[in-house]
Amino acid sequence: MNSETIQLACELIQRQSVTPKDEGCQPLIADRLSQCGFDIEHMRIEDVDNLWAVHGEQREPFLVFAGHTDVVPAGDADQWRFPPFQATIDAGMLYGRGAADMKGSVAAFVVATERFIRDYPNHKGRLGYLITSDEEGDAYHGTDAVMQELTRRGEQIDWALVGEPSSTEQLGDVIKNGRRGSMLGYLTVKGVQGHVAYPHLAKNPVHLAAPAIEALSKEVWDQGNEFFPATSFQISNIKAGTGATNVIPGSAEIMFSFRFSTEVTAEQLQQRVAELLDQFDFEYELNFELKGLPFLTERGQLVEAAIAAVKSTTGREPELSTAGGTSDGRFIAPTGAQVLELGPLNKTIHQVDECVSVDDLNTLTEVYYQLMVNLLA
Amino acid sequence: MNSETIQLACELIQRQSVTPKDEGCQPLIADRLSQCGFDIEHMRIEDVDNLWAVHGEQREPFLVFAGHTDVVPAGDADQWRFPPFQATIDAGMLYGRGAADMKGSVAAFVVATERFIRDYPNHKGRLGYLITSDEEGDAYHGTDAVMQELTRRGEQIDWALVGEPSSTEQLGDVIKNGRRGSMLGYLTVKGVQGHVAYPHLAKNPVHLAAPAIEALSKEVWDQGNEFFPATSFQISNIKAGTGATNVIPGSAEIMFSFRFSTEVTAEQLQQRVAELLDQFDFEYELNFELKGLPFLTERGQLVEAAIAAVKSTTGREPELSTAGGTSDGRFIAPTGAQVLELGPLNKTIHQVDECVSVDDLNTLTEVYYQLMVNLLA
Repeated sequence: MNSETIQLACELIQRQSVTPKDEGCQPLIADRLSQCGFDIEHMRIEDVDNLWAVHGEQREPFLVFAGHTDVVPAGDADQWRFPPFQATIDAGMLYGRGAADMKGSVAAFVVATERFIRDYPNHKGRLGYLITSDEEGDAYHGTDAVMQELTRRGEQIDWALVGEPSSTEQLGDVIKNGRRGSMLGYLTVKGVQGHVAYPHLAKNPVHLAAPAIEALSKEVWDQGNEFFPATSFQISNIKAGTGATNVIPGSAEIMFSFRFSTEVTAEQLQQRVAELLDQFDFEYELNFELKGLPFLTERGQLVEAAIAAVKSTTGREPELSTAGGTSDGRFIAPTGAQVLELGPLNKTIHQVDECVSVDDLNTLTEVYYQLMVNLLA
Repeated sequence: MNSETIQLACELIQRQSVTPKDEGCQPLIADRLSQCGFDIEHMRIEDVDNLWAVHGEQREPFLVFAGHTDVVPAGDADQWRFPPFQATIDAGMLYGRGAADMKGSVAAFVVATERFIRDYPNHKGRLGYLITSDEEGDAYHGTDAVMQELTRRGEQIDWALVGEPSSTEQLGDVIKNGRRGSMLGYLTVKGVQGHVAYPHLAKNPVHLAAPAIEALSKEVWDQGNEFFPATSFQISNIKAGTGATNVIPGSAEIMFSFRFSTEVTAEQLQQRVAELLDQFDFEYELNFELKGLPFLTERGQLVEAAIAAVKSTTGREPELSTAGGTSDGRFIAPTGAQVLELGPLNKTIHQVDECVSVDDLNTLTEVYYQLMVNLLA
C-alpha cells in the first residue's frame, strides 16, 4: 500500500500536463486543500492555469508553498523504461515525467499540509499555495502574473518555499537560497555581403566579430561573492551565411546569455557589452532581454526553519547554494519575500526515465510538515 | 535583318538550357560545324551533354574554342523586362538569359568559324570545339570529364580560347589570362555541450573558435605577384547552437573559401591552416575541397594573337587580368594548354535583364575570326 504522498504523486503524473496544460492537476490539489478549509482561487491567465489558495486567520506571518503542475515533454516515449505518464514504481523508485520536477514535491506539500492543519487547526499566520501550469515555458502568465495581481491587492508574502528539486546526492543536502540573474543578449554584427572572389567589395561580419567575441568571452565581469559564483557569459547561438560557399555573409547573428551575481546589475552588464563592442570597428545592433534578477535569501527565520526541518528529519546539515538555473522564485523574491528552494534530487529532471525515490518523497513530506511546525505552529 | 551571329544567338537563347540541360543547343552547333567539315563527337556523361568537334589535317598547332550552352536559372521571370527565353532586341541590346554568359560568344564562335573555313579551307593545324552543358553547376561531368577523356587519348591542346564574358566596360578591354585557385574548407571546432547555468561542465566552441577565426582572417598568406592579387581567405558560413537560449553548443561549424595565387600551393594552404589551428587549445576536424588550381597564361603566341585580334578589330589595347571567379579554363590549363578568356561585357551576367550589345556580338565575331587568322591561317 503506497503512502498518501505517493498515491497523490501518481495521480498527478498520470495527468499529461505538458506546459502550459494543467489537465486537472490543480482542481485535484484545490479539492484536497478546500477540504482542509483553504480559500481557493483559480486564476486562469491567457492559456495558463494558476491556483492561489490560502488558510489561516492571522494576516502575518505568511508562508507560501510555490510550485508548478506543468512538465517538460517526454520526448520519445519508446526510450523510457516505463511509459512516462503511467507512474510506475520499480525497485523503490517512482518513474514518470514530473516525478522529480515537481509533482512529487507538490504531492508532499499537500499531504504535509493536511496533517499540519489537522494537528494545528488554529496555526498562527497564514499558509498559502501558489501553483502554476507554466513554469517550464515562457512563464509570462504564471507565477509572474499572479505575483503582480497579489501585489496590486497589497498581499505580502513573508516566506516562500519553492518545491524545485534542489537536492543533489541525498535528500536535503542542498537548499537553494537564491539564484543568479539571467539575461539574454541578441547581437547582430553588420558587414557588407559580396562574392568571395571580390573580398575588397565586401566586409566579412564573421571576421569583424571574431575579436569581439574573444574579448567578450574573456571578460571578467565580476568575482562573484560569498553567495554567488562569478557572473558568466556564454554564446548560445551564432549564425552567418546562406549555405552558399562563394558568398561573404552580410551579417552575423549572435545570441548570448548572462548568469549574473548580485555584484553587478543588468544595466551595468548591458553598458559594458556595448562599451566593449564600441572598441571594434563595425556596426552592430544589440538588444537585451532580462529574464530574472538575482536574488538572495540570507540567514533568517525561513533559512533556520528549513535547515532545522531537514536536520530533524534526515540528520543531514544542508548546504546553502545559489548555483544552477532559474526558478519561479525570481518572481517572488523581488516583492521582499524570503525565498528558498527545497525539494528532491535533481539528477534525472528533464531526462528520459525521470524518477524519484519513494522513500525520499515520504521523507520530504515530513520535512515540509516540520517546516510548517517550525514557522506556524 | 539581323546578322548571322545574332540570329544564331537568338536560336540558342530560345532553348531553355538551364544547367545541366542542353535542350538541343549542341545539336544545332554540331549541325553548323558538320556542314563546314568538322568531325563531330557527342560525349554524353551522366546527365551532361558535351560536344567535341575537330577540323583540320595537321595535328599541330591545335586551337580550341571552349564554352558552354547551359545557363543559370532566370529566377522570377516577371521581374524581367522581356521574357528571359524569348531573345528580344531592344535599343541595340539583345536580352535573354545566356545572352552574355555565353550563348552570344558561342554564336560568334560558330559564325566566325564558318567564315574562316570558307576563307581558309586548308588552314594549318587543327581547330576544335569543346562545349558543355554543365559549366554553371557542379561541372563534374562537363569540361573536366571531357579533358580527362582527351588526355587518355593523347590529345594535346595548344591554345584554348574560352568565350566567357571577360570585358568590363568596352568589348575587348579585358582578356583573362589566368584565374586564381579556389579551395573550400570545412572546419568543425569541438566543444562540450552543456547548460548555460553550468558553464564549468561545458566547453563553448564559439568562445574557443573566436581567436582562431581572428588569426585566420588576419593571416597574410602571400603577397600575390605581377599577375595575381594576394591570396584571400573568407569565411562564408558559421553555425553553432540549436536556437535554444540556455544551451552551450557542442560544436561550431565553419565553412571558408580560399582564392589563391600561384605563390602558394593548395597543400601549403591546408598545412598552414592546420598549423595555425594547432596553436589553439581545442579539438577540431578539418577538411578541404580543391575546386580549381590557379593557372596563368603568360605572354606567348596565344596572348599576342588575341591582343592583335582585339586591336585590329576594335582599336583597343586589352588589359590582361586574373581577377574574378573561376571558369572551365581551370580544367584545360593543367594539361599544358595556353588558356585565355575573351568575350563580351560581364555587367549583367546572372542577373535579371541579362543582355549583350548587338554591335558587340558582331564585333566579337570579327575578333574571333581574326584570332583564327592570326594563329591558323
